[in-house]
Amino acid sequence: MNVNRIVALSKKSVQVGQRLLVCNSNPTGREVLRLQQRRSIRTHSRNLAYAKSLFLGQVNKAEVFPYPEVGNEEAEEIQQLVAPVEKFFAEEVDSARIDQEAKIPPETMNGLKELGLFGMQVPEEYGGLGLSNTVYARLAEITALDGSIAVTLAAHQAIGLKGILIAGNEAQKNKYLPKLASGEHIAAFCLTEPGSGSDAASIQTRATLSEDGTHYLINGSKIWISNGATADIMTVFARTEVVKDGVKADKISAFIVERAFGGVSSGKPEDKLGIRGSNTCEVAFDNVPVPVENVIGEVGGGFKVAMNILNSGRFSMGSSSAGMIKKLIEYAATRKQFNRSLSEFGMIQEKFALMAVNAFVMESMAYLTAGMMDRPGLPDCSVEAAIVKIFSSEGGWICVSEALQVLGGLGYTKNYPFERYVRDCRILPIFEGTNEILRMYIALTGMQHSMVDEQLILKRVADVLINLYAMTAVLSRSSRSISIGARNHDHEVGLSVCMCVCANANIKSTPKQHFNENLMAVVQSLSVTKPTQL
Amino acid sequence: MNVNRIVALSKKSVQVGQRLLVCNSNPTGREVLRLQQRRSIRTHSRNLAYAKSLFLGQVNKAEVFPYPEVGNEEAEEIQQLVAPVEKFFAEEVDSARIDQEAKIPPETMNGLKELGLFGMQVPEEYGGLGLSNTVYARLAEITALDGSIAVTLAAHQAIGLKGILIAGNEAQKNKYLPKLASGEHIAAFCLTEPGSGSDAASIQTRATLSEDGTHYLINGSKIWISNGATADIMTVFARTEVVKDGVKADKISAFIVERAFGGVSSGKPEDKLGIRGSNTCEVAFDNVPVPVENVIGEVGGGFKVAMNILNSGRFSMGSSSAGMIKKLIEYAATRKQFNRSLSEFGMIQEKFALMAVNAFVMESMAYLTAGMMDRPGLPDCSVEAAIVKIFSSEGGWICVSEALQVLGGLGYTKNYPFERYVRDCRILPIFEGTNEILRMYIALTGMQHSMVDEQLILKRVADVLINLYAMTAVLSRSSRSISIGARNHDHEVGLSVCMCVCANANIKSTPKQHFNENLMAVVQSLSVTKPTQL
Repeated sequence: MNVNRIVALSKKSVQVGQRLLVCNSNPTGREVLRLQQRRSIRTHSRNLAYAKSLFLGQVNKAEVFPYPEVGNEEAEEIQQLVAPVEKFFAEEVDSARIDQEAKIPPETMNGLKELGLFGMQVPEEYGGLGLSNTVYARLAEITALDGSIAVTLAAHQAIGLKGILIAGNEAQKNKYLPKLASGEHIAAFCLTEPGSGSDAASIQTRATLSEDGTHYLINGSKIWISNGATADIMTVFARTEVVKDGVKADKISAFIVERAFGGVSSGKPEDKLGIRGSNTCEVAFDNVPVPVENVIGEVGGGFKVAMNILNSGRFSMGSSSAGMIKKLIEYAATRKQFNRSLSEFGMIQEKFALMAVNAFVMESMAYLTAGMMDRPGLPDCSVEAAIVKIFSSEGGWICVSEALQVLGGLGYTKNYPFERYVRDCRILPIFEGTNEILRMYIALTGMQHSMVDEQLILKRVADVLINLYAMTAVLSRSSRSISIGARNHDHEVGLSVCMCVCANANIKSTPKQHFNENLMAVVQSLSVTKPTQL
Repeated sequence: MNVNRIVALSKKSVQVGQRLLVCNSNPTGREVLRLQQRRSIRTHSRNLAYAKSLFLGQVNKAEVFPYPEVGNEEAEEIQQLVAPVEKFFAEEVDSARIDQEAKIPPETMNGLKELGLFGMQVPEEYGGLGLSNTVYARLAEITALDGSIAVTLAAHQAIGLKGILIAGNEAQKNKYLPKLASGEHIAAFCLTEPGSGSDAASIQTRATLSEDGTHYLINGSKIWISNGATADIMTVFARTEVVKDGVKADKISAFIVERAFGGVSSGKPEDKLGIRGSNTCEVAFDNVPVPVENVIGEVGGGFKVAMNILNSGRFSMGSSSAGMIKKLIEYAATRKQFNRSLSEFGMIQEKFALMAVNAFVMESMAYLTAGMMDRPGLPDCSVEAAIVKIFSSEGGWICVSEALQVLGGLGYTKNYPFERYVRDCRILPIFEGTNEILRMYIALTGMQHSMVDEQLILKRVADVLINLYAMTAVLSRSSRSISIGARNHDHEVGLSVCMCVCANANIKSTPKQHFNENLMAVVQSLSVTKPTQL
């Protein structure tokens, strides 16, 4: 596809910047991107977040150094929450059974609810735990040990109820959040449609205002809906007619839909490779009456809501993947062969090293991002979150496969958890925005300043940024460990150097003409950095 | 583990060279390796095969140039066989059902038997098709489309009956091969035991000679036996007491065991991630009486038999993986998104390119190796075969995952075959010798001339050799295409250059001190070679 066609295509839509976020890979023209950039900068309440500023040649040290500290209140919460949740997952969660029966048993669901895990980030005033992003990320390390539970919880609160939380009005919050936070009601997020897939802007579900103006009638069909069969409350995106400056236009709006409104039906569960205990199905809306007061945010403003929901949740994939890998190391390290522990063999040690470095980098990136998001000022960390998601989902896939390989034939059977982790893990590069689409988003966000070009170059630029952010995160974390004299700081420095050498090699293999001067300067600056030196 | 310990360990066994083949990762000492080398060279009936000679700095061009041509007889066989087998797999094989029911239906088994696929390499005089390695590899491209069938067929003839074929006497061949070739009898290969895994030399199953000297009584238990529950005839490896020069020693012997002898029982099928329609189970031998005439080869010579069996089959994983990848490209190429074919998008094109290059390299390596094996003189292609197996199983795993990714959420469901290929494919780096063990074998085979060192260095040397052989195969193949003016030679040259650039980059990242001068010279020679220039 030539550049002319890209530019021509891009002119068809003025929503390109927004569409990319939820996410659309239509390449975009320079003009559109400039418009988007101005809008984007206007909406920043603090300043350009770290990753975006890298494209301008700026290393915003204040954003990433020192590495975020856990506050006293957070430390106390972590202490209170981690032990019981770990105990519950170790003693009460039967992941083999959940996978086999493709269902989370009611007693397990009740246990999760009693622990407060259905309302982790819902403020306490609405009955939730009111956790910061950092503490939420810490708990995600544990809930990730069962992929089906992790997805069920994420579909409920990371996306399902998130729209009410971040864009709902006080009445909506009061009405819906308490029962959602307790898990009495289950939530789902209904965006994707047959034929839309990653192209979320092309949805066809329609909401038509009733003649008396009191409610909308929603008609359409959504696919790949996690919790689709079990949800009581759904955040549904539909086209609505909007009149602006006397001109009618179709815009997307977000609605809170109760299953109790009637007309909502669910298809049979998808038969999936993994996360089999989580429910995924089609949800159809047949003349579903939704009161006008159930619009989230502005009529016609639904796309921005969807975008903000999706961006706010991705960072936690770093800590959840790290939690999973650390557990896999634990499982695999006990294996023996040739009358010796397998971990004595060089080629097996290399696999453990790969897992350890990956877990360390994922953790570092996740908590750096969570820390930035927890600070006042609401910076836009969407690029960082996309980076964490890509790095963790791809690293996680490699690590679970290597862990299975350590066990050989045993790892290939259902007598061990490795094959289940392989199956569960494979969804990560696909959902919450495919990694291909997110790479486009990362690169286009930065390159609006200087270039518009084709996907393969965008991919390389995205990979450069992913590596730069990974390097930043481990340098920041290990520098902190040195400066506070942490017991394991030598080990952390070793892991960091290992990561930086690899990342640097990856960056150096990218042809120089794919960089602008700004990015080049950052690459050179970070490439020679060692822990404590940035 | 330090070098002294490696040397000390290696001195415990004089069977190290052989043990590695079936395969054992105990690092070995210089002295043992020299012994092995002398033995290995003595048994060569032609000359050092191509890959081994690379370690001596010799590029044996005559072995690999020109690329093997298919003879007239072979071409005719291929023409006769390919179409009906393709038709059968397209119309009669229901892979989703086989996977779901964890069983190949009887009518499918019968169809495979009628096509002669249970006796592909059994000579015609014993009722088989008598195919060359090249034609066998071609059919493997098709049978690989169903992993369960491929494994069932391979367990039967690539290992199960192979001992009788390559080391059995005329009476054994006459008695057993006809019913095995027709599929009336199913074969299995019983080597691995609980606790032995890759360390095959440590098996504990014992064969005790009866007092009248007419039969052995076999006692012991074997695990991971493909076709274990269905096999009528088994090649079983067991320890026997051998007296040599007046000294008693325990040596491994190979036996033909009929289930009808009595005392053979099978455990419940393993519940596996993939290849679920193939049967894998434990097989126990309780005082099984086996006539002395059922020893394959010499008493005490079983380890060499096992080694030769395993080495003879691995090369075909190249063509079977290539067949699978080409089918996945076909499945994935039709997918649409954003109202355009997905294959129009750069990032998706990159995935197709990855798959195409991998399939091309695997094919090139498999048929180069098959061609070498088909020539008179019985060269030892065990290193080449191990290389093909490693490259194909690891490349295959990456490709199936990328193919699934192209389909996104759809690929993650059982409505499409991608997730099944991911599951089936994951066994390839594990079985027929794990890739870790085979890397040790490749490196130790070559480095006996100059070095003994630890696993991580051995791994890098193995990877260098894997890359060199891959480069050789594509250079040879595309050179042939240029010289005969093949229609698609430009395309093949493109794929070859792409492969060589990547392989060269991998080789260059290996520290120079890990090469000896000989290997270095070969690397430099092949690195600058272009098609038609070697």
